[in-house]
Amino acid sequence: MQKVRFKVKGKRSVELIASDNENLLEAARRAGVMIDSPCSGNATCGKCKVKIVAGKVKTTKSRHISDEEAAAGIVLSCNSTIIEDIEVEVPDLASSFVNEMQITDLSKNENKNISYVRKKMIKRGMTNASRLRSEVIQLPEPNIEDSLADEDRLKLYFRHELGYQDISMSLNLIRKLPDAFRFNNFKIEVVYLKRREVAEILDVKPANAEKTVLYGMALDIGTTSVSACLVDMNTNEIVTKISMGNAQVKYGADVINRMVYSEKPGGLENLRHAIVDETINNLIEKMVSALGIFPEDIYEVCAAGNTTMNHLLLGINPNYLRREPFIPAINDIPEMKCSEVGIKINPEGKIYLAPSVASYVGGDITAGVFAVPVWMREEFTMLVDLGTNGEIVFGNKDFLMTCACSAGPAFEGGEISCGTRAVPGAIEAVIINEGDLRPFYNTIGCVSPIGICGSGIIDLICEMKRTGIINGKGRMDRDLNNPRIRFDEYGIGQYFLYCKELDNGSRDVYITEIDIDSFIKAKGAVFSAIYTLMESLDMSIDVLENVYVAGGIGTNLVIENAIALGMLPDIPVEKYYYIGNSSMQGCYLALTLTEGKDQIREISKNMTYMELSIHPTYMDEFIAACFIPHTNMDLFPSLKN
Amino acid sequence: MQKVRFKVKGKRSVELIASDNENLLEAARRAGVMIDSPCSGNATCGKCKVKIVAGKVKTTKSRHISDEEAAAGIVLSCNSTIIEDIEVEVPDLASSFVNEMQITDLSKNENKNISYVRKKMIKRGMTNASRLRSEVIQLPEPNIEDSLADEDRLKLYFRHELGYQDISMSLNLIRKLPDAFRFNNFKIEVVYLKRREVAEILDVKPANAEKTVLYGMALDIGTTSVSACLVDMNTNEIVTKISMGNAQVKYGADVINRMVYSEKPGGLENLRHAIVDETINNLIEKMVSALGIFPEDIYEVCAAGNTTMNHLLLGINPNYLRREPFIPAINDIPEMKCSEVGIKINPEGKIYLAPSVASYVGGDITAGVFAVPVWMREEFTMLVDLGTNGEIVFGNKDFLMTCACSAGPAFEGGEISCGTRAVPGAIEAVIINEGDLRPFYNTIGCVSPIGICGSGIIDLICEMKRTGIINGKGRMDRDLNNPRIRFDEYGIGQYFLYCKELDNGSRDVYITEIDIDSFIKAKGAVFSAIYTLMESLDMSIDVLENVYVAGGIGTNLVIENAIALGMLPDIPVEKYYYIGNSSMQGCYLALTLTEGKDQIREISKNMTYMELSIHPTYMDEFIAACFIPHTNMDLFPSLKN
Repeated sequence: MQKVRFKVKGKRSVELIASDNENLLEAARRAGVMIDSPCSGNATCGKCKVKIVAGKVKTTKSRHISDEEAAAGIVLSCNSTIIEDIEVEVPDLASSFVNEMQITDLSKNENKNISYVRKKMIKRGMTNASRLRSEVIQLPEPNIEDSLADEDRLKLYFRHELGYQDISMSLNLIRKLPDAFRFNNFKIEVVYLKRREVAEILDVKPANAEKTVLYGMALDIGTTSVSACLVDMNTNEIVTKISMGNAQVKYGADVINRMVYSEKPGGLENLRHAIVDETINNLIEKMVSALGIFPEDIYEVCAAGNTTMNHLLLGINPNYLRREPFIPAINDIPEMKCSEVGIKINPEGKIYLAPSVASYVGGDITAGVFAVPVWMREEFTMLVDLGTNGEIVFGNKDFLMTCACSAGPAFEGGEISCGTRAVPGAIEAVIINEGDLRPFYNTIGCVSPIGICGSGIIDLICEMKRTGIINGKGRMDRDLNNPRIRFDEYGIGQYFLYCKELDNGSRDVYITEIDIDSFIKAKGAVFSAIYTLMESLDMSIDVLENVYVAGGIGTNLVIENAIALGMLPDIPVEKYYYIGNSSMQGCYLALTLTEGKDQIREISKNMTYMELSIHPTYMDEFIAACFIPHTNMDLFPSLKN
Repeated sequence: MQKVRFKVKGKRSVELIASDNENLLEAARRAGVMIDSPCSGNATCGKCKVKIVAGKVKTTKSRHISDEEAAAGIVLSCNSTIIEDIEVEVPDLASSFVNEMQITDLSKNENKNISYVRKKMIKRGMTNASRLRSEVIQLPEPNIEDSLADEDRLKLYFRHELGYQDISMSLNLIRKLPDAFRFNNFKIEVVYLKRREVAEILDVKPANAEKTVLYGMALDIGTTSVSACLVDMNTNEIVTKISMGNAQVKYGADVINRMVYSEKPGGLENLRHAIVDETINNLIEKMVSALGIFPEDIYEVCAAGNTTMNHLLLGINPNYLRREPFIPAINDIPEMKCSEVGIKINPEGKIYLAPSVASYVGGDITAGVFAVPVWMREEFTMLVDLGTNGEIVFGNKDFLMTCACSAGPAFEGGEISCGTRAVPGAIEAVIINEGDLRPFYNTIGCVSPIGICGSGIIDLICEMKRTGIINGKGRMDRDLNNPRIRFDEYGIGQYFLYCKELDNGSRDVYITEIDIDSFIKAKGAVFSAIYTLMESLDMSIDVLENVYVAGGIGTNLVIENAIALGMLPDIPVEKYYYIGNSSMQGCYLALTLTEGKDQIREISKNMTYMELSIHPTYMDEFIAACFIPHTNMDLFPSLKN
């Protein structure tokens, strides 16, 4: 038994008693200390570096740890075991994506799309109001000749005055009726959901001078990050937006690693707790305290996540999603009380989860299709959602086809040596000077660079290709003699964007041939999925009138560069739109339009899923696409000269 | 701070630390020791006698404690306070109605009525089966071309093979699906409720060689006692029946005293806990362990109780029921999960509560009307339910009128000096010899008498009138010189049925003029309620074709005697039927006939409630009826000679 003290730099320290030879990463998880570990403890990603500041651990050498680092006590926590009392410094960086939230408005693009789509849907006949309502009501006071029960009295009012056929309410609310009615002589405020002919009562309280402001929450549950918008349900206005990393990241970067982890004892519950309590309830708490309101003022959550996220959120074993034949427990999750799920809003508040279509086409996509809105368009439209998985939807008002490919976390900065999420210090745009191969870049927040995010990686690789640093296979030119280009002891090429030596920097930020290879595989997967989907319909890429690119890759995505890399089809740039978080937009729209949720359900039922893994030509297409831009240049005519 | 040890005679002892001057009855309640206290601690009923065997208490003299008793250390616990360490003996009798259950079959009458009514209802078109079903299903195993989600796979089966439009299930069940499906290669057993076109799934498990036996429970929640029948839902057979006292009795004998108690801090929760955990869950535990099954095998509860019992069961403030204008929080309680209420059966199991009509006409009456069945009859029919409250329903298939009167606990042996519930030792039938006024009686279980129960009191008073011991006002003849008749220090007459002195008995069992007065008020309330109801419809008593007498008054009720006392109308005895627990029979029928529950709901909506307390002539009628048999002998023609 050893004493371990984790010091989260500049924040807090936590102590626990570890067993002999306990894995250091496991111990950190037990202590609730977040260490970034995208590969889930397999020593392949090199992200879980920590510094041993007192005592020592048993560790194995890794190509991710330089000799310098080793000398300074830095180890990979996942391949270190505890043999004596130690003190461990956990870098600020590792926890920053959870602890430092970003509070931002929806981007201009996102807002523009929302108001455009909203108008279009209302024109089409949707009700310009949410299902959530409230009324201040003066009920007639009972007397010996009018001795209706309290609940009957309320029911009668809803029938006669508001036109409902019936009301429903939970036991907890029934318990509130007698005293709530009599506190202010039967003048009450009622919050309810309009469910066609039935009013589902969510709250009954004595009427106050001021009517309660009702809030709803749109929630996008991503594998990597989770965002929430709080909406004033009377005005449909977004009053605040917040996002932070999905706390499940400590158990694995991608859905596969998390599913694997969920099979360990207590794993599923740890994952559920991480998303529900550490992430969502944390977000809610921060939003409500910033606004000076109460969690009880939120009555509805409209959420979207991929199929795995839905399973983990609800504590459902997700492991049949990853085993052939890839079967979800449930696609269309019934609306339930947030309290059942553990989400802390009003105790009667509801959560609606956008339905999935298949194991790898989730609610984030059906919500996205609703928001784009592919299902309303005359023209052939495509939605490409670039996250840890790539999902593609193609169609129009008459049909919807969808498929998914595993892109890996490269687009969001994962499994890239110096990759990072889109946080302050992330390099988000790059140009390389042709002569001396010197890089010029912008970082988010204009601070000194800490890593490269998705859009930065695309720019960087595109520029490396343009300037001849790499060839079509992503291999660096061995003949270039440039201080920014180095080869490590294993012969792997590196290009330095920011460097201790050359730039007097505080750290090194570079890209390696291995990183570029990861990226090429990711972009190849996406392109070949698009191509296979279109080909299976006997359609040419040219029929596409609109292509919407969604996902956390960053507002600074340069479409030309994505085409130049062979990631997106070579059609006129004007047909592309980067719309950011389409899933979140779908949730917002479903929250604020009465028929929205049913429409998403309808969309999910009408989507035809194509399983790429059994498609006869997909593998060949994928291999052909693993080249910059592509082995078949006829597919990229604009790049020919 | 004083140490108090309660010794429940021959059973167990409990210790607690009491504060100085703590009330002894309150301390017993805190310790969970049951002391019978019908008047809820007002020192009026004299039932809470205990014996101080070590130490002493501060107590006040009471007419309920004889000098002999006082010398032996017997006190009323409600007017004694703790001033030093004491040891208290709590008599066996006080706790017997809870600790000693009676396991009996339904009586012959009850069984006869059930099978008669069942047949009649099925003939009328009701489905001869409960809503609860189970199926053993072999689902097609998924493959890469048939990748339906588990829940969709089940839904498809229910649609195509069983003809349902949809299925529904809780989150807990969704969590079970993936592993339950795959344990036995998609061969599963499904338990569900048929709700018109929707199957509500209650359980999904891997199919076993033997199909699960499903149980349902019919539950009658009386103010005084609670009975349960466990039913095999495949055969509709009652497999066991059990009853015991309502553990709320320790907080007051009647609904008014319990409501008053519910306003004390923690009172409502104590009452809820007493009925849910100490009574109902206790009954369930005893039944399932006797049968060797599990609580999880019970999937449905069909319950009936009066309006106050419903409120207390659900933890709803009942106090507006007793304050003018007597308003329930809710009459028609939505079906809910037993787990919400705290009743421990299958976690997905449901509870249906028969709806109330008004504050003093509860679900026990609507269930009773269903079972009698007044609502199906051509002839004018009356149901008279004699419990702590008397409820009357009159009508036929075209209309139903109802009213309630407060009879007090006299019919069930309460507030009568030597009254007792129908437990072993209760005198249930009496004849008095005309010459020497010697009593002859039967006791339940043929053991030596401990008190008198409802039917015994009716016989006794009737015989006392017949033999001239009392006059029409219930006053004893002062001229009789008989060792069985005595007058106490306050001049109150007593008649001894069983006596230490005359019978060499272990105790005295007697009736006083005060008891007789209580009884006359009770019977007067019932008769005048019946009379006022009929008169308000401009109908004579003679239109009655059937009168069903229900309630815990006992199978040995002699209708002739009840008429002779002026308790029931003077119509031919052949028109009367004693049917016992009609509420329980209604619950059983609703449990085993698909449409039963909806039918009870329908009945409750069609019942017209008459509030006697504001009826202009009720008070006069009541006063006129407080005489044996009645001040107006024209109403009792058969008694004229």
